[in-house]
Amino acid sequence: MSRPGCIVFVRLKNLDADISSKAVKNLPPLSRLYGAIEAGGTKFICAVGTPEGELVDQLRIETRDPTATLAQVLDYFDSAQLRLGHIAALGVGAFGPLDLRPGSETFGFITSTPKRAWQNTDLAGALKRGLRCPVFLDTDVAAAALGELRWGGGQNLESLAYVTVGTGIGVGVVHHGRPVHGLMHPELGHIFVRRHAEDAAFLGICPFHGDCLEGIASGPAILARTGRKLEDVSPSDPIWMIEADYLGQLCAHLVLGHSPQRILIGGGVMRERLYSGIRERMLHWLGDYIEAAELRASDYISAPQLGEAAGIKGALSMALPDG
Amino acid sequence: MSRPGCIVFVRLKNLDADISSKAVKNLPPLSRLYGAIEAGGTKFICAVGTPEGELVDQLRIETRDPTATLAQVLDYFDSAQLRLGHIAALGVGAFGPLDLRPGSETFGFITSTPKRAWQNTDLAGALKRGLRCPVFLDTDVAAAALGELRWGGGQNLESLAYVTVGTGIGVGVVHHGRPVHGLMHPELGHIFVRRHAEDAAFLGICPFHGDCLEGIASGPAILARTGRKLEDVSPSDPIWMIEADYLGQLCAHLVLGHSPQRILIGGGVMRERLYSGIRERMLHWLGDYIEAAELRASDYISAPQLGEAAGIKGALSMALPDG
Repeated sequence: MSRPGCIVFVRLKNLDADISSKAVKNLPPLSRLYGAIEAGGTKFICAVGTPEGELVDQLRIETRDPTATLAQVLDYFDSAQLRLGHIAALGVGAFGPLDLRPGSETFGFITSTPKRAWQNTDLAGALKRGLRCPVFLDTDVAAAALGELRWGGGQNLESLAYVTVGTGIGVGVVHHGRPVHGLMHPELGHIFVRRHAEDAAFLGICPFHGDCLEGIASGPAILARTGRKLEDVSPSDPIWMIEADYLGQLCAHLVLGHSPQRILIGGGVMRERLYSGIRERMLHWLGDYIEAAELRASDYISAPQLGEAAGIKGALSMALPDG
Repeated sequence: MSRPGCIVFVRLKNLDADISSKAVKNLPPLSRLYGAIEAGGTKFICAVGTPEGELVDQLRIETRDPTATLAQVLDYFDSAQLRLGHIAALGVGAFGPLDLRPGSETFGFITSTPKRAWQNTDLAGALKRGLRCPVFLDTDVAAAALGELRWGGGQNLESLAYVTVGTGIGVGVVHHGRPVHGLMHPELGHIFVRRHAEDAAFLGICPFHGDCLEGIASGPAILARTGRKLEDVSPSDPIWMIEADYLGQLCAHLVLGHSPQRILIGGGVMRERLYSGIRERMLHWLGDYIEAAELRASDYISAPQLGEAAGIKGALSMALPDG
């Protein structure tokens, strides 16, 4: 018995049985469905959605070890496909580092992550074997960039950088609609920026580099200096000025290295008032060398339009035939 | 009378008349010809070549003001086409900054260059009008990267960075066979790297940024500190250790931002002994975070295989139908 045949049968049955669900009601009857996973260090968001970007169903799973977590993920998709119909493909945006080199023996693996249990986990392979559909994997930030490009703050753009500043600092860059990969994916959270005069004494907390950008500008780095949780740090604390300078340097680097048409910055550290300070410091570090008027536009550096849904919607977009 | 018809007539005539020229003799009889220009601040190299990368004819022109220089360039191609046959298209690798945004009013212009006479020069437009063939423009370093990718040290690679360290510092990056452009092309010569402890007092010479990378690691920056021309600076001078550190930081940035499969570094400042020092400092700044074994290979950072011909051959490759 072919799997798609079985699924179609169950789908019709369930559409009758569960007709009261708003999500299912809104589902265009002839639309194909696609799966999406935002795989994070603390949670996995699993979802089923349409080519138009509507998430018709989703589940949040706490991240445990790979075996337990992936079993729960596969259970979810089995159950979702019984309820909604089969998914044609799955897109996955995951924490990393990931091996994304086609032809590599560990293609699709999470590699040298500090999360020990997840080191050398064949994420894409396990999902492909379990779901028997094509699986498209990229970093969480590349997925978020793709989501914003298709349905959010990057529509009609060819190039976009997506930055998240939270527990760590991640950067995804898309050119010509494709995430940038070479030997591996970008890891711009670990660049060395110039230290702010009022912050010279702080040694930084990156286990690999000490005072690289992530070591001095991530959420835990702010906590290490202020002794406060982010929500308890006063808006007038000088740390925000320092933070804007460091993130402004990151944006200057992005302009000099990639010159994306827009930079979106999200994540738990970001506050509305930070954006203008970051733009100001970016222009300071660029020193009038780059003339493009776009850099001075108030939306050149802005918040992701899809908010927290950027990652899961981006993963969905990766599963689409033109994704 | 159509131009191609006229040219074909003259071509046959001239192949008979000038059969003694080695270049023309070697020309495959059915090969189409393409034009190439490496447009630099001191010289324009103009050439005619084949799809296999053979330059069958070339001329060096001193760079003067745009009117005089471009007139000489057009004269060259008129004369070369009379001798050799018509060119199907022209590829141009040029100094910049360039406007490479399709749809922009100043698309194909040299924009805010410090070379005043060349500011806001419609380089691509003038060549297209003069030669009546398709013109493909990119930066000199992007062209060099494409040349190395097709015929030099980047064959079989998908991504490559080409760095030139001379009067200035330029970086071209190619992903999936295409040069990286967003809002504009990369300008990684102007990033801010961390200052070396033994070089803290030098203010740098970049007119825009003072001590950005170009301001402290270009040829003139070495001259400013040592008071000597490059060829007179002793191999044991500490400046080379400082230079290796700064260029190592650039390479670390390239790995973190683009992770190209290889980095080629050329230009007048480079010496054979610098490469291993740069690789060592790159690995220091990466701090074992990026695991890819390729980074430790002795040829990960190496000299351009095409040497000084990378730029003009790259310009030629841009003119090809699959360039």
